[in-house]
Amino acid sequence: MADRVQEILSWYSSDNAGTKTNIARLLRHGKLAGTGKLVILPVDQGFEHGPARSFASNPGGYNPLYHFQLAIDAGCNAYAAPLGFLEAGAAEFAGRIPLILKLNNHDVLHDEKDPLPSVTGSVNDALRLGCSAVGFTIYPGSSHCNTMYQQLREIAEKAKDCGLAVVVWSYPRGSELSKEGETAIDVVAYAAQIAAQLGAHVIKVKLPTAHLEQAAAKKVYESAKIPIATLAERVRHVVQSSFDGRRIVIFSGGAKSEDANVFEEARAIREGGGFGSIIGRNSFQRPKAEAMKFLNTIMGIYAGEIQ
Amino acid sequence: MADRVQEILSWYSSDNAGTKTNIARLLRHGKLAGTGKLVILPVDQGFEHGPARSFASNPGGYNPLYHFQLAIDAGCNAYAAPLGFLEAGAAEFAGRIPLILKLNNHDVLHDEKDPLPSVTGSVNDALRLGCSAVGFTIYPGSSHCNTMYQQLREIAEKAKDCGLAVVVWSYPRGSELSKEGETAIDVVAYAAQIAAQLGAHVIKVKLPTAHLEQAAAKKVYESAKIPIATLAERVRHVVQSSFDGRRIVIFSGGAKSEDANVFEEARAIREGGGFGSIIGRNSFQRPKAEAMKFLNTIMGIYAGEIQ
Amino acid sequence: MADRVQEILSWYSSDNAGTKTNIARLLRHGKLAGTGKLVILPVDQGFEHGPARSFASNPGGYNPLYHFQLAIDAGCNAYAAPLGFLEAGAAEFAGRIPLILKLNNHDVLHDEKDPLPSVTGSVNDALRLGCSAVGFTIYPGSSHCNTMYQQLREIAEKAKDCGLAVVVWSYPRGSELSKEGETAIDVVAYAAQIAAQLGAHVIKVKLPTAHLEQAAAKKVYESAKIPIATLAERVRHVVQSSFDGRRIVIFSGGAKSEDANVFEEARAIREGGGFGSIIGRNSFQRPKAEAMKFLNTIMGIYAGEIQ
Amino acid sequence: MADRVQEILSWYSSDNAGTKTNIARLLRHGKLAGTGKLVILPVDQGFEHGPARSFASNPGGYNPLYHFQLAIDAGCNAYAAPLGFLEAGAAEFAGRIPLILKLNNHDVLHDEKDPLPSVTGSVNDALRLGCSAVGFTIYPGSSHCNTMYQQLREIAEKAKDCGLAVVVWSYPRGSELSKEGETAIDVVAYAAQIAAQLGAHVIKVKLPTAHLEQAAAKKVYESAKIPIATLAERVRHVVQSSFDGRRIVIFSGGAKSEDANVFEEARAIREGGGFGSIIGRNSFQRPKAEAMKFLNTIMGIYAGEIQ
Amino acid sequence: MADRVQEILSWYSSDNAGTKTNIARLLRHGKLAGTGKLVILPVDQGFEHGPARSFASNPGGYNPLYHFQLAIDAGCNAYAAPLGFLEAGAAEFAGRIPLILKLNNHDVLHDEKDPLPSVTGSVNDALRLGCSAVGFTIYPGSSHCNTMYQQLREIAEKAKDCGLAVVVWSYPRGSELSKEGETAIDVVAYAAQIAAQLGAHVIKVKLPTAHLEQAAAKKVYESAKIPIATLAERVRHVVQSSFDGRRIVIFSGGAKSEDANVFEEARAIREGGGFGSIIGRNSFQRPKAEAMKFLNTIMGIYAGEIQ
Repeated sequence: MADRVQEILSWYSSDNAGTKTNIARLLRHGKLAGTGKLVILPVDQGFEHGPARSFASNPGGYNPLYHFQLAIDAGCNAYAAPLGFLEAGAAEFAGRIPLILKLNNHDVLHDEKDPLPSVTGSVNDALRLGCSAVGFTIYPGSSHCNTMYQQLREIAEKAKDCGLAVVVWSYPRGSELSKEGETAIDVVAYAAQIAAQLGAHVIKVKLPTAHLEQAAAKKVYESAKIPIATLAERVRHVVQSSFDGRRIVIFSGGAKSEDANVFEEARAIREGGGFGSIIGRNSFQRPKAEAMKFLNTIMGIYAGEIQ
Repeated sequence: MADRVQEILSWYSSDNAGTKTNIARLLRHGKLAGTGKLVILPVDQGFEHGPARSFASNPGGYNPLYHFQLAIDAGCNAYAAPLGFLEAGAAEFAGRIPLILKLNNHDVLHDEKDPLPSVTGSVNDALRLGCSAVGFTIYPGSSHCNTMYQQLREIAEKAKDCGLAVVVWSYPRGSELSKEGETAIDVVAYAAQIAAQLGAHVIKVKLPTAHLEQAAAKKVYESAKIPIATLAERVRHVVQSSFDGRRIVIFSGGAKSEDANVFEEARAIREGGGFGSIIGRNSFQRPKAEAMKFLNTIMGIYAGEIQ
Repeated sequence: MADRVQEILSWYSSDNAGTKTNIARLLRHGKLAGTGKLVILPVDQGFEHGPARSFASNPGGYNPLYHFQLAIDAGCNAYAAPLGFLEAGAAEFAGRIPLILKLNNHDVLHDEKDPLPSVTGSVNDALRLGCSAVGFTIYPGSSHCNTMYQQLREIAEKAKDCGLAVVVWSYPRGSELSKEGETAIDVVAYAAQIAAQLGAHVIKVKLPTAHLEQAAAKKVYESAKIPIATLAERVRHVVQSSFDGRRIVIFSGGAKSEDANVFEEARAIREGGGFGSIIGRNSFQRPKAEAMKFLNTIMGIYAGEIQ
Repeated sequence: MADRVQEILSWYSSDNAGTKTNIARLLRHGKLAGTGKLVILPVDQGFEHGPARSFASNPGGYNPLYHFQLAIDAGCNAYAAPLGFLEAGAAEFAGRIPLILKLNNHDVLHDEKDPLPSVTGSVNDALRLGCSAVGFTIYPGSSHCNTMYQQLREIAEKAKDCGLAVVVWSYPRGSELSKEGETAIDVVAYAAQIAAQLGAHVIKVKLPTAHLEQAAAKKVYESAKIPIATLAERVRHVVQSSFDGRRIVIFSGGAKSEDANVFEEARAIREGGGFGSIIGRNSFQRPKAEAMKFLNTIMGIYAGEIQ
Repeated sequence: MADRVQEILSWYSSDNAGTKTNIARLLRHGKLAGTGKLVILPVDQGFEHGPARSFASNPGGYNPLYHFQLAIDAGCNAYAAPLGFLEAGAAEFAGRIPLILKLNNHDVLHDEKDPLPSVTGSVNDALRLGCSAVGFTIYPGSSHCNTMYQQLREIAEKAKDCGLAVVVWSYPRGSELSKEGETAIDVVAYAAQIAAQLGAHVIKVKLPTAHLEQAAAKKVYESAKIPIATLAERVRHVVQSSFDGRRIVIFSGGAKSEDANVFEEARAIREGGGFGSIIGRNSFQRPKAEAMKFLNTIMGIYAGEIQ
């Protein structure tokens, strides 16, 4: 399986050895090490939704150390969180799991139709905390997209210069998009393309629906008969839209949901050529034993051990 | 009791020795030295409310030296003030009490529903004045929260690099919050979480009420039956929301009030696992002898000498 | 023919040897090497219009390597693309074709009457990817023109200092211009002049119509009897408006169109003294064999081999 | 009298020797040298009101050299002016009088209810011109107060680092203040406090009236029975509001006025413990001989030679 | 006549030797060398009005080399133009005429009642092109005046540090000024004063009319009986308003006009003590032979050879 990692690294031929090393760290850690698949544990809900909404259902999660341990014990490829959560455990867990420092965040004490998260950390913070990558969220479709793209540009340039990998959360949202449009297949594929063009090494998007949002795109999807009927087909199209599969694209699990649904989605991601999942609320919002079992199943699906 | 300080320092494992030293200075100074509890004297009302409203009731306070001496004589852990007040006494009182330079301030000659304080000092100012920490106020809920979070991010990165501690005043306020919502338990707990995620070493919030402001949070508090009926329970929830108690959280005394109330509140803070108080107007707006007695009682409660 | 390149380089007498070398690289590469004519392949539609609208008609184009190969095989002078597309192949194709890194881009998930693209790359990115030039789009007529001109100013100063060439896409657009006015001859000539005054080495504009947009200009065109009836005359006027032909001016092919039209336009560009074309959608949105033939004809026209 | 200067310098104990030297230069120059009192000649009206309104009544003042000579001959402590006026004479009069470079200015060709002056010089300019201090105007109450406070913060930090003194003009003005409120005693005292907290060494305010502008302040002034009936009492309150007299506070002469009034005001300033005056229009807008006599009387009042 | 240059240089006593050298270069070049008078050729109309409106009447002017040659052949003191025009000839004409790089420019594809030009070059650009001065336009009266003054402040500080001279075009314009007010004598004199206070070495204004725009100024002009009836008197007042004649003030020729008028104006400028003219459209928009004759007459008037 090591060859698969080398193959993936070959797509990042213009990056320096440091960045290649850190991409490799993500791909060579945990249960899916070497498979080219990733399951990442992200915990930014404390900032994004508030502590009680995030941790009351499984109060162990109020403690930042809990999530390091969960990610390690479940065999995730990496653990991603904002500055405070990583500062609170980076030394205790030094070298035990690749870390991704999320560099921008948004709270809902003040919300806006056209979101613009705050930059809450720096590349230097990521370096001093021993992280393998920085994470950054863009909201294509927001009237503030210029600001976010340019913040990302600057961060990504510095991160690459310092040998870090760049993970981009690309979530369409804004006053010109319908609610349904935020997960429309044309919009999600476009969001993946934008992240790739901005220089992301790893792209994270939401699972797309078969809805087509933009009239000019709809015409092309229909005339070119792009297959988007099944979730696997849509995943395949998003992967294709990410430099024909030459960028790592992973999908978010979204809000807490029936396990069967999540497993079904993981199978579609696998079948469509996706590279894995970021699974937050579905893992840390349940008792640890259940979370371990749940994540184990997901990883089994990606590893091809579970059909 | 020294062990308690070491235990608290262990939560800041990713900080450098300089920052650990300065956190320790706050915890090892004054009457509460070594207990893990803090009572800090803050005097920024001259800037925030104007000189007469702040000092006319006890005119000694017009003089900046008064407050250094009060904080020292009362055995406070630290003294916090804006640039001018610290510049006016930092050399005279060099090394006699840990200082916290408040780096942003706001006046009421021009007020706004969505506040944005001015940055009125720098990390370099804190260093040249011999301070142990910088202080910064954020107003989660303000439409300017992005600006404040990003100012804090930059200041905190530099302060940590220079071995200073970072104290964050986190006061929800803004056009989308009701007046009652500013001290609602869900909102205060969220504000503490945001400060923690932004990398604060010490977090200061207001004492919360049992009100629940945000609908999505209310649902969780009710379904998870989070205990918030008593003040001590609410303090405990705020402490839990600050990385499960792994960040120092202190509470403000608020406007001048009956002493009995303040003592009652201090007992609730102690009982709920809070780390102490910031007490400004209730101390410097009365004659010094009375203030000494008043602060002595508060410290006695925190030290467990007074029940 | 080498003399023609030397003649062109003589117009850039204030540039350093590095920049002259890179302008020469553009002029001495591909089928038109040494003729003083250029055909450049630009592929930024993935960002500007989305992936399906750009690549579904010829799915090979989803792959960034496809375009490097197409530009090389067709004998283009250079290949221009945003950061992600160049990062994805710059090492594989190192030294095989001059590259132009497009430093700003715009997507249509959020569109505005007065466009302001995002800066999505830097001069340092261009250097680390081995590019010969940076590309930048300005929209004269936009209410954001100040921002764009000043971004370009800063980028161009740094690029020239680092020995790179500067290619400017100058596309009039904005709330005060009519749709017809965006390609009006007075407006296009003005846009070329602005790019030249801002220090562009290579200017790219759209083919102009005979429409006259601005009243004050119309008066002059009519009184001075400036010939603008034929496309060749209009090209000649745009070239004259670019420092009397002492700047390289190339024209865009625009949306996919009948081949005969494009060939006719190339003849007019040649006849009017234009320096060539940037041809994106008309080349990469058709099967490669057809694209090669198509580009071969265009180059034949510019080389004077085809009448 | 030298002891008085040493006493004043002792209030600035956290400043470096360079800044102490420059404060001392202001206090040890001219007729009032060593008394702890200051009369400063400011000439910024050319910028603020236009040349004819400033100089037509005494046309010698069009010439920048005139004001240097007037300040020297009249025995003022210092001369303050914008960049152009100081550049025009700083070399001719090198070392003959302490100079204060006013670093922001405002003109009335474009006026606004909430003023924001332009920054028109730098600390480096002050250094290269041999100045002892920089001057900066803030308008507390303006909606732009954040910008001004932050400009001042940055300038003051640099000035102190370079051993210069910082003089702050603090003039309440803005859309939320009534015209009467701009000189209300509560507002002027607050403005002095803000300047002191921002780190000013010398504070300049207008002479306050007995009006009380802000309801919350009015309540305190009345309940605490702060004496504000006479001008001397109001001056004393402003001095008290400036760190209990531990900052140099001087008062502006305002528009041209009857000499008897100005002398009466000077007596009130002296009686109230004020440190002196900035007198512009009342001095340079009359013939030099008259101005000399006028300033001589003012200085005599401050020196206690004239009752 | 050399004494006159030394006398003028003496007014710039606080500038370094480099800046004095470059002011001297302007004053010692061309037909008026040594007279203390200047005629400068400015060609920024290509940017400001578009190419056809600027050059169609004399098509040689499309070529940037034309203007260098015209300025040299006519014996102008200097040639001023934006970045592109200077880059296109600075090496060919190296050392043959002092150059002024205009650092900001504005186009009319997007126009605004309150103008804010774009910064289109830098002090470094001026240095690498061998210029003697930088030029910068301010629009006092524009709501964007703060931005322009602060851009100028930064540019002027750097230019002076690098030994360049600073030429300021000061053109009142903005929503609060009437059309007539833009050239009113009170407004033009004020604009000259602002430029001088901002540190300009050479000030360029429009010829003023006898109109008085601002009520407060009108009162003073009338009560002080400032003579403004004739153009020569108004020129004299503008010169007086520029530090009593201790700054070089030159006047613009404005739109193309009858030669007799322009000569009459030059006589008034001479009679009023003005230092010369900037003459663009009246010189390069006619055949070169005519332009030479025209400029020769102007220079003859300034030299006192023609009455």
